[in-house]
Amino acid sequence: MIMKNIAFLSLIMFLSTSVFSQEPATLVNPFIGTTNYGATYPGAVVPHGMVSVVPFNVTPHKGNEYSNTNSWCSNPYVYNNKWMTGFTHVNLSGVGCPDLGSIIVMPTTGELNVDVNEYGTTISNEKAIPGCYSTKLDRYNIKAEVTATTRSGLSRFTFPEGKANILLDLGHGLTNESGAHIKRVSENEIEGYKLLGTFCYNSHAVMPVYFVVRIKRDNMESGYWKFQNKLPGARHNWSSTSDTYKLYTKYNKELSGEKIGTYFSFDAHEGEQVEVQVGVSYVSIDNARENLDAEQTNLSFEQIKQNAFDYWNTELKVVEVEGGTKDDKVMFYTALYHLLLHPNILQDVNGQYPAMESNAILNVDNEERYTVFSLWDTYRTVHPLMSLLYPDKQLNMVRSMVDMYKESGWLPKWEIYGRESHVMEGDPALVVIADTYRRGLTDFDVETAYEAMLKHANTIEDNFIRHDNEFYLKEHYIPFVKDYDNSVSQALELYVADYNLSLMAGAMGDKATQKKAYQRSLGYRKYFDKDYNLLRPVTEDGKYMEGFDPVQGENFQPVHGFHEGTSWQYSFAVPHDVKGLMRQMGGKNKFVQQLNKCFKDSLFDMSNEPDMAYPFLFNYASGSEWRTQKQVHDCIRRYYKNSPDGLPGNDDTGTLSAWLIYSMMGIYPVCPGDMNYTLSSPVFDKITIHLNKDIYNKEQIVIEAQRRSADDIYIKEIKINDRPYNRYFISHKDLIENGNVKFKLGSSPK
Amino acid sequence: MIMKNIAFLSLIMFLSTSVFSQEPATLVNPFIGTTNYGATYPGAVVPHGMVSVVPFNVTPHKGNEYSNTNSWCSNPYVYNNKWMTGFTHVNLSGVGCPDLGSIIVMPTTGELNVDVNEYGTTISNEKAIPGCYSTKLDRYNIKAEVTATTRSGLSRFTFPEGKANILLDLGHGLTNESGAHIKRVSENEIEGYKLLGTFCYNSHAVMPVYFVVRIKRDNMESGYWKFQNKLPGARHNWSSTSDTYKLYTKYNKELSGEKIGTYFSFDAHEGEQVEVQVGVSYVSIDNARENLDAEQTNLSFEQIKQNAFDYWNTELKVVEVEGGTKDDKVMFYTALYHLLLHPNILQDVNGQYPAMESNAILNVDNEERYTVFSLWDTYRTVHPLMSLLYPDKQLNMVRSMVDMYKESGWLPKWEIYGRESHVMEGDPALVVIADTYRRGLTDFDVETAYEAMLKHANTIEDNFIRHDNEFYLKEHYIPFVKDYDNSVSQALELYVADYNLSLMAGAMGDKATQKKAYQRSLGYRKYFDKDYNLLRPVTEDGKYMEGFDPVQGENFQPVHGFHEGTSWQYSFAVPHDVKGLMRQMGGKNKFVQQLNKCFKDSLFDMSNEPDMAYPFLFNYASGSEWRTQKQVHDCIRRYYKNSPDGLPGNDDTGTLSAWLIYSMMGIYPVCPGDMNYTLSSPVFDKITIHLNKDIYNKEQIVIEAQRRSADDIYIKEIKINDRPYNRYFISHKDLIENGNVKFKLGSSPK
Repeated sequence: MIMKNIAFLSLIMFLSTSVFSQEPATLVNPFIGTTNYGATYPGAVVPHGMVSVVPFNVTPHKGNEYSNTNSWCSNPYVYNNKWMTGFTHVNLSGVGCPDLGSIIVMPTTGELNVDVNEYGTTISNEKAIPGCYSTKLDRYNIKAEVTATTRSGLSRFTFPEGKANILLDLGHGLTNESGAHIKRVSENEIEGYKLLGTFCYNSHAVMPVYFVVRIKRDNMESGYWKFQNKLPGARHNWSSTSDTYKLYTKYNKELSGEKIGTYFSFDAHEGEQVEVQVGVSYVSIDNARENLDAEQTNLSFEQIKQNAFDYWNTELKVVEVEGGTKDDKVMFYTALYHLLLHPNILQDVNGQYPAMESNAILNVDNEERYTVFSLWDTYRTVHPLMSLLYPDKQLNMVRSMVDMYKESGWLPKWEIYGRESHVMEGDPALVVIADTYRRGLTDFDVETAYEAMLKHANTIEDNFIRHDNEFYLKEHYIPFVKDYDNSVSQALELYVADYNLSLMAGAMGDKATQKKAYQRSLGYRKYFDKDYNLLRPVTEDGKYMEGFDPVQGENFQPVHGFHEGTSWQYSFAVPHDVKGLMRQMGGKNKFVQQLNKCFKDSLFDMSNEPDMAYPFLFNYASGSEWRTQKQVHDCIRRYYKNSPDGLPGNDDTGTLSAWLIYSMMGIYPVCPGDMNYTLSSPVFDKITIHLNKDIYNKEQIVIEAQRRSADDIYIKEIKINDRPYNRYFISHKDLIENGNVKFKLGSSPK
Repeated sequence: MIMKNIAFLSLIMFLSTSVFSQEPATLVNPFIGTTNYGATYPGAVVPHGMVSVVPFNVTPHKGNEYSNTNSWCSNPYVYNNKWMTGFTHVNLSGVGCPDLGSIIVMPTTGELNVDVNEYGTTISNEKAIPGCYSTKLDRYNIKAEVTATTRSGLSRFTFPEGKANILLDLGHGLTNESGAHIKRVSENEIEGYKLLGTFCYNSHAVMPVYFVVRIKRDNMESGYWKFQNKLPGARHNWSSTSDTYKLYTKYNKELSGEKIGTYFSFDAHEGEQVEVQVGVSYVSIDNARENLDAEQTNLSFEQIKQNAFDYWNTELKVVEVEGGTKDDKVMFYTALYHLLLHPNILQDVNGQYPAMESNAILNVDNEERYTVFSLWDTYRTVHPLMSLLYPDKQLNMVRSMVDMYKESGWLPKWEIYGRESHVMEGDPALVVIADTYRRGLTDFDVETAYEAMLKHANTIEDNFIRHDNEFYLKEHYIPFVKDYDNSVSQALELYVADYNLSLMAGAMGDKATQKKAYQRSLGYRKYFDKDYNLLRPVTEDGKYMEGFDPVQGENFQPVHGFHEGTSWQYSFAVPHDVKGLMRQMGGKNKFVQQLNKCFKDSLFDMSNEPDMAYPFLFNYASGSEWRTQKQVHDCIRRYYKNSPDGLPGNDDTGTLSAWLIYSMMGIYPVCPGDMNYTLSSPVFDKITIHLNKDIYNKEQIVIEAQRRSADDIYIKEIKINDRPYNRYFISHKDLIENGNVKFKLGSSPK
């Protein structure tokens, strides 16, 4: 099942002739981004896996600096935390809100203790490679190794001699939802579900995850537990289990509640290895079992681990890099690894998946149904990059999005397991669809997609995507109406979306929409305040908001008009009209001056998506391209590292990693929908992108950089197919068709 | 399904000739016992119903004197409470520990409020007849009427105009267990289960009850709710639902947790009637639905209500009484009504039931599988009376008990829905089986039953029924070993059990057991202390316990050696050897003097089962029989009434009611197993017991009492079949065979 997609066969063919000095999967460091709020995890997972097996160490405890209690900790694992309480089996990578981080399996030894506040342990000797994580549980002297298939996890615990316990804890985790149900199936199998969701505290995005847990061992004692709420009044004193964990040693039927779990205990002989299988589904318990059986039957731990590694290796080989340091390569392939975690597979092995915003169970009518679309983030870098590197996957992602429209009446914004969570702003699905289409990936239901785009753009009533649409359609901006609204941020997103709608309308021959949408996309000019040379909230009567402070909004400080950022961090976010913005600002020099100030005065935020293109915008001011080369390299070196703090903030389901991949390759799509990449100096000497020949009719692109030392970061010369090229932009089509870009680099600006 | 048992057809036949001046079901007052700790309920139920629909008014609230919080409140309803929070669908009647009282349906009006602490109401205009209860919910101006079939409930709510809500609340109730699961099936149907058990704080007696709830109305808004525990730390502030009730307005899949429920809301027109059906099963959700459909399809509320009433009428007609006051008749038929609530039906309409102490689902191989056997209570009066009045039911109860042994290896002691709760003392199943057998009801698996009795009596290790068995088998008593143990109470129960084992062994031709068990049954003499003429705990070395206080133990005060009672309240509890006890005490006069002191000095407790036979024990002292006649009448008049406080304490699943039935008829089985009834003066002028002719080969027994006034409570003359009779005992066989007892009563002792 793992390698069923078309890409695999194609890859096998065209990779058979290439020689990697090192398998790329060995160049992945899964610990990158596991601190400094990167929110990635080092656990075992395969590309786009529904299941990931992750050491959970954010339970509140004195050893844990970050916890799911007192900080906005959105990840199951933090590198510098100390106290680990088990392995979670469903997880999100790089997101900014806590969810999932559930179905926790924990091995212990000695007397049974089911209290999460007591059974944790420090860990040591952590190792992680793609598809496998291992560690030692210090307190229990247990070696834990975990691996995964697409829809199941497998843990192998090596116990010391004596009493051993395996806990399945459904009572803690990351999600804000609570409540679970379990039922014993046999001596060593438990089935159940747990509620997930309320993602980003949106109370409507709720979903059950179904599971089957099987311990590959016989002769175990086992039972359930539940934390009993304190019985009222005097009854507390009459009960031996009030306000404490109650063990159910004989009860084997259905159990439900909040802090519940199952334990298995046995006498281990020295070095005894016990494996725990966890099958997962978002459709049903039966499907969870079918997934587990389909993906693990007759496979040993070592085989599953090897399969996972091979799967990664195959996917990562799509790009070959030469030159650069070892750290550069690790950063690059780890970024590619992070790119491939989300969106992830939603459908079960039998093809069933939960429909968007309904109770229906449907069957995939294309190859994969993807979920976890963090589109405000990912439209900028992830999806354009997927179109380039993994166009078959990107097509399936767009098909999934269009299917969501068919199922729910809307394209997704921040979709999570079939539910719209309404997180962040704008109408990002339009951008993704138009961008994909324009890259030549048109094998999806374009007509329905366009219908959906129009619905998003034109619906006035109950338009939860464009909630201020009546005013916006008329005035082309969103007014500041109350303190701390996100009016400008929302409008900026709509401008990019409408720019893309305009492009799509052009392709569809819908000239009226093409024109109107384009006009709307220029509405940002309304916010432009010459006094500041920045964007400033505007009221309903067209006046600038009083009390404007262009640096208000740093570090999540509340701010009027902008979402999680300052005016500075949003004012250049009109990638579809950079030249127009430049004119607003008074020309090239003023523009460069203002942009430069962002970096000089630390007004730029590498981890905030609207800022991501900033370093590349100097390319729009001819003569200042060296500033882009410098800023891009500065950003790479300053914000990205081969270490746990190697991401500057939430990876946002691969968005920051995709930025790094582009930047290290020297090409960047400043404005999705706009088919131009802008150019900067690559980090590597040679980058070979193996194209999907079925789609691009071309085998590969090669980007080369000639340099004398690593300090040579400035572009002296560009050649396309060995012909001199004097522009700092190249279209997607030209890049594919010509296929060879050569940079000559030097240590000083040209 | 309701009237499927054989008795019904037989009854129809032999009742067709009898003329009741009033239908006996009209003479039932379901409010009797609903305060003064009687622990009965006024709700709708059919004989032995799995389901009862009961107004739940013991939620802690200022209007509720008794609540499930601060008092040992074991019932869903207390007459003098004021604050009602819905209708429970599974309930226990007359027990001493809280359990069940769950699956709560509550109608409200106005803005939806799902907080049980807020949505309650006072009620007025309560009416209850067998099978139907109705009331007005004052706050909401809703009329509520509820009725039941064996395995389902039906409520009819009449709403005023405006917004109406129907809540299904699974988050509160009587049981100590918590946790439930629900799932929407359709617009107006919910299925799920709720955990019950931890009966009497015994943590192992846990069971799920499955249900299907259907609202007979379309066009409703509906959703779930769950009380969200307070999120830890700062997360509480980020969440709009932390530490409060969260409404799930769109989520329709599985929900589980502690305080959860479902609501249905709609705009009612003035006087709109909406019916709510609840099907229940202890096997599965599917069975709950099958039960509901089988018992309610194509039946109107009025038809179901009438069927329930008719069912009661048919059952109650087994005894006809003439004479006495209206109150006497109401007390009598209400007692008969209480007798028929427990044990109750466990199997579903398809015959499936949950096996004893396992996960197995079995099929009935006899007519009914009964559950809720409170045997320490019921062996004394309930089962002997069932054998006389409803022998077919009693046979099924014994068959159920023997099947429990086959399933779990033990006969029940206090069985509740397939789980042994280990409540109270002794080995009461032996008594019930021997008594039933000796009354001629032998159509059960006697061989297996005897095997089980021997196992109970002879097992040394892990004998949870006779936990001190090694010592007891050797020494014939149970030693006082630690403060507040129940050593004497436990031993007294074993004596009665061993007396019955001896009788059974005699019937089985097992002379060795017959002799040994009989010898053990006399072990009580070890406790007899001549200095007090009472029983006194004895230590392992055979010495009387120091610090003995024969009145210690009143009002649930802790006491050494006795369970919930004083030495006085236990010292006459050797019904199998009253004459022997008399000799111990120094003869008839001393015995009468001591027994008399019980009543004179208020040392007697009418609500404590070991005391129940005390009033009848004067009959063993010839010449003092008038004292029994007086005491029995005094007890009836003092402790029983036609009013909510009309029971002297917990009815103990019909035990106190059965005492009243016997006492009002003038016959009492002092010692189960001993086939003698002792005689006292009946309350009624004529009592006709319609016998089950198949079993007793006789149509009826008639007991008559000739009196001039109600003050004539003393027996002047007894005639059996018109022949003078000078004994105050008559054997079961003689009573049945002769069939006519006539008392001549007077106002002074003979």
